[in-house]
Amino acid sequence: MSRIRIGIVGYGNIGKGAERAVLAAPDMELRAIFTRRDPVSVNTVSSAPILAIDAAEGMKGEIDVMLLCGGSAKDLPEQGPRFAAMFNIVDSFDTHAKIPEYLAVVDAAAINTTAIISSGWDPGLFSLLRLVYSSILPDGESYTFWGPGVSQGHSNAILRIEGVRNAIQYTIPRDTAIAAARSGARPKLETRDKHVRECFVVTHPGADRAQIEQKIKGMPNYFKDYDTVVNFIGHDEFIENHSAMPHGGFVIHSGRTGENGHVAELSLKLDSNPEFTGSIMTAYARAAFRMSGDGLYGAKTVFDVPPIYLSPDDRLTLIKELL
Amino acid sequence: MSRIRIGIVGYGNIGKGAERAVLAAPDMELRAIFTRRDPVSVNTVSSAPILAIDAAEGMKGEIDVMLLCGGSAKDLPEQGPRFAAMFNIVDSFDTHAKIPEYLAVVDAAAINTTAIISSGWDPGLFSLLRLVYSSILPDGESYTFWGPGVSQGHSNAILRIEGVRNAIQYTIPRDTAIAAARSGARPKLETRDKHVRECFVVTHPGADRAQIEQKIKGMPNYFKDYDTVVNFIGHDEFIENHSAMPHGGFVIHSGRTGENGHVAELSLKLDSNPEFTGSIMTAYARAAFRMSGDGLYGAKTVFDVPPIYLSPDDRLTLIKELL
Repeated sequence: MSRIRIGIVGYGNIGKGAERAVLAAPDMELRAIFTRRDPVSVNTVSSAPILAIDAAEGMKGEIDVMLLCGGSAKDLPEQGPRFAAMFNIVDSFDTHAKIPEYLAVVDAAAINTTAIISSGWDPGLFSLLRLVYSSILPDGESYTFWGPGVSQGHSNAILRIEGVRNAIQYTIPRDTAIAAARSGARPKLETRDKHVRECFVVTHPGADRAQIEQKIKGMPNYFKDYDTVVNFIGHDEFIENHSAMPHGGFVIHSGRTGENGHVAELSLKLDSNPEFTGSIMTAYARAAFRMSGDGLYGAKTVFDVPPIYLSPDDRLTLIKELL
Repeated sequence: MSRIRIGIVGYGNIGKGAERAVLAAPDMELRAIFTRRDPVSVNTVSSAPILAIDAAEGMKGEIDVMLLCGGSAKDLPEQGPRFAAMFNIVDSFDTHAKIPEYLAVVDAAAINTTAIISSGWDPGLFSLLRLVYSSILPDGESYTFWGPGVSQGHSNAILRIEGVRNAIQYTIPRDTAIAAARSGARPKLETRDKHVRECFVVTHPGADRAQIEQKIKGMPNYFKDYDTVVNFIGHDEFIENHSAMPHGGFVIHSGRTGENGHVAELSLKLDSNPEFTGSIMTAYARAAFRMSGDGLYGAKTVFDVPPIYLSPDDRLTLIKELL
């Protein structure tokens, strides 16, 4: 059986995670990695060729699925439709509010290709469980918690404050809110009720820490409405203890059938957020390839994908061993 | 929009759970309940007509999906193919070892119908997560725990012992095994390592309790290789404390990407096993109806069903609200 030929667009953290996952897949071959940087300046783990992003155009017919590993703010809105016009694609577009708009743009471009968008863990795996749970227990409520884990966006917001040398922000689910969600009482919980924000900040010499702390805690949208804890630490401690990218979270669905209550829960505890995200995208690349083979073109989401398309194993083996 | 017309075959615990779920579904109509008993002897919750099982034959074209709520040992092997030849069906066939054989028989009968088999929570929802997890983290191991909950088969095995008036068996996951599965160490755990069996037994006057306990603990397949605890209690306590049918369990998947470990977990805590099972079957009835409309005939499993088919809501709403 010939292997599925994969290309990776963007070689940041998610791109590296995807590379690792593709190399581990028995039914896939990593054909090339595409970058906007000067290709000779980029060192990859695998021996796959690293090419300028514009070289992708010339490789139609040589790559079955492109994994778009760029950011949701600037890269994907441009790359999604551009690559979906030429290749089957998978991405992890994660700006929740803009998904319908992005879906429409990619769908218009994916005339003869399959484009599975937003296939990370949230949106992605968590969305899948929210859909399944709410379909099974319609008289119920889903609660999503993120963390404990690093929020890149919040870390960057702190970095923009004058006097800050380095910063990381951890989103931490609040134990009391988790307990309330599991209780079956179906409380109303906003994101801010469910999470605490803890920041570790390294300052430049002479910086005014009290003022930095005040600026962080008062920052609208990011921190103002949250319980925020700010810790100032030294550079060495930062490098030693805060260089990994762990993450995780929960989806808790609490529902009823008549007199009876039921709680269904999915939890993730991830040592590396980008490697897990790259692994999900790789499984969905397999699905994109197969759906494309079935003529199921257009923009798709995890909701549209028959789960069996995620596995390299054959149907009867899966039914015997996993059903 | 016309509603999906549902029939229920078998009015035991699961049939009652399915009835409740169908009545709660905004897009469904319960057309009839079919029983092998004398229909006049059966009282239902809803006002749906209750009919003799042989009356189903005459209702082809009047029912879109039949929910087969009989037992896996005797009812479904006969009813599955018989009804799949006439109607779209959903069942919760749960004899794991016989699924491939049952699938083949139902598939042969489902020429112009869609038959989704084994769609309870295990097999069913748990299987779905085992497939998704192992596809995302192929370098990993899945652990399934059942309980705390009632095992009907084990309860019945105790009931067959002379001197036993009433009995119930709870399967209880062992905390140490759960911790080992979550640890990332990927231990090898057999079913017996993962669970304890706790029995509550009511005896007839004059029965030899020591002998009954010995018989339970020595029973091959059921109890012999397990840690089994036997409690003798009075009839009133039995009725008071052991009449519900709670259940639940966990699927824990522990996997690696390179240096990093990840743990994904699904847990269920159910006040009523049959009501939850009936609710899952009802969501899959919606999927069976739609897949049949797409011409996707034959025997299917939860692996084959696009998740979006489980929900009554339209795609764009789901993408906006749950993705």
